[in-house]
Amino acid sequence: MSANKISMAVIKRLPKYHRYLAELIDKDIKRISSKELSEIIGFTASQIRQDLNNFGGFGQQGYGYNVEDLYNEIKKIIGLTRTYNTIIIGAGNLGQALANYTSFGKFGFNLKGIFDKNPKVVGITINDIEVIDVENVKEFIKNNDVEIAYICTSRSGAQEVADVLVEAGIEAIWNFAPVDLEIPKEIIVENVHLIDNLLTLSYFLKDND
Amino acid sequence: MSANKISMAVIKRLPKYHRYLAELIDKDIKRISSKELSEIIGFTASQIRQDLNNFGGFGQQGYGYNVEDLYNEIKKIIGLTRTYNTIIIGAGNLGQALANYTSFGKFGFNLKGIFDKNPKVVGITINDIEVIDVENVKEFIKNNDVEIAYICTSRSGAQEVADVLVEAGIEAIWNFAPVDLEIPKEIIVENVHLIDNLLTLSYFLKDND
Repeated sequence: MSANKISMAVIKRLPKYHRYLAELIDKDIKRISSKELSEIIGFTASQIRQDLNNFGGFGQQGYGYNVEDLYNEIKKIIGLTRTYNTIIIGAGNLGQALANYTSFGKFGFNLKGIFDKNPKVVGITINDIEVIDVENVKEFIKNNDVEIAYICTSRSGAQEVADVLVEAGIEAIWNFAPVDLEIPKEIIVENVHLIDNLLTLSYFLKDND
Repeated sequence: MSANKISMAVIKRLPKYHRYLAELIDKDIKRISSKELSEIIGFTASQIRQDLNNFGGFGQQGYGYNVEDLYNEIKKIIGLTRTYNTIIIGAGNLGQALANYTSFGKFGFNLKGIFDKNPKVVGITINDIEVIDVENVKEFIKNNDVEIAYICTSRSGAQEVADVLVEAGIEAIWNFAPVDLEIPKEIIVENVHLIDNLLTLSYFLKDND
């Protein structure tokens, strides 16, 4: 059950399992076969069995999966049986949007602080949290057991911020700045490059008229 | 040069080439070998040559790539030599953040309208654009040659909105709602499932303390 052997492709599919299983629970569905799950989730039944076998199975021949058990197992695997202290760096529009996303809190990602370097923004309150001068971020991370930082700065400021976060002992960075950060390998990084995503649309659209 | 044969993995890498080549141009670098490009972009040199061969090459043995020519070719391939009319559905925090993202406009994605169903939001102005009642979105799409819609609604409202967009003849949907939409295959869809992304971080973090 070592996590090291699991491919990134499988890991990236886990949240989707989690999402669909939550919906099945909402609909009060108790049990599901890999074939039925395949029809709603869009992966093949054999893909589903393979994916879940990575974590030790869970299905029973002739019965399928107990929805709630499977949901709880997936929750454990993707780390949703504990909480995480998070901060946002950059209180611009995107930072504010993320600060106001209540669903992150529901999943256990507790927003502890919001930081900005702009004196006009420092001191304002977003979702009951006061924006703090980014000068104080290092101390804050140490004092508040912050594990995850969401970088919502401009491209030009992101690497500098990342360096400070790394010095402060941050464990994971969720980067929204349109730049690939240089970060030590032991720190977990996920990038959301919105422009890259949008350019996939234009790639397919370009010849449409 | 048919786009049909290009794998999704290659297409997803193109925006990164575009981004790094823009930086090289900013630094006034005129020419680069696949080896040098490899060192800054993080793909192997052979990967780079393979990727670019999909579109007909561009490199010259012993010379490498002319940065500006390659940049312009990539721009063409990802569809950045024309503009796209876009709209946002859902003027909540995320919708507002996207509306205020000036970089989309710089790439040629021109925001033409913002829509919401909430009477408290309809009529307010975001980035000089007045929020319109979503009741009018179908007519608006037809009258303004809108090609791309960004769905920034809640999960529960997203499919209904998508159905209206499809009826109105939208060509591409950028979906930020945490749900997989049922959309006819001929319409291009890109999903940004933020929670899924965040759960990749928790997957790796869960055992860290």
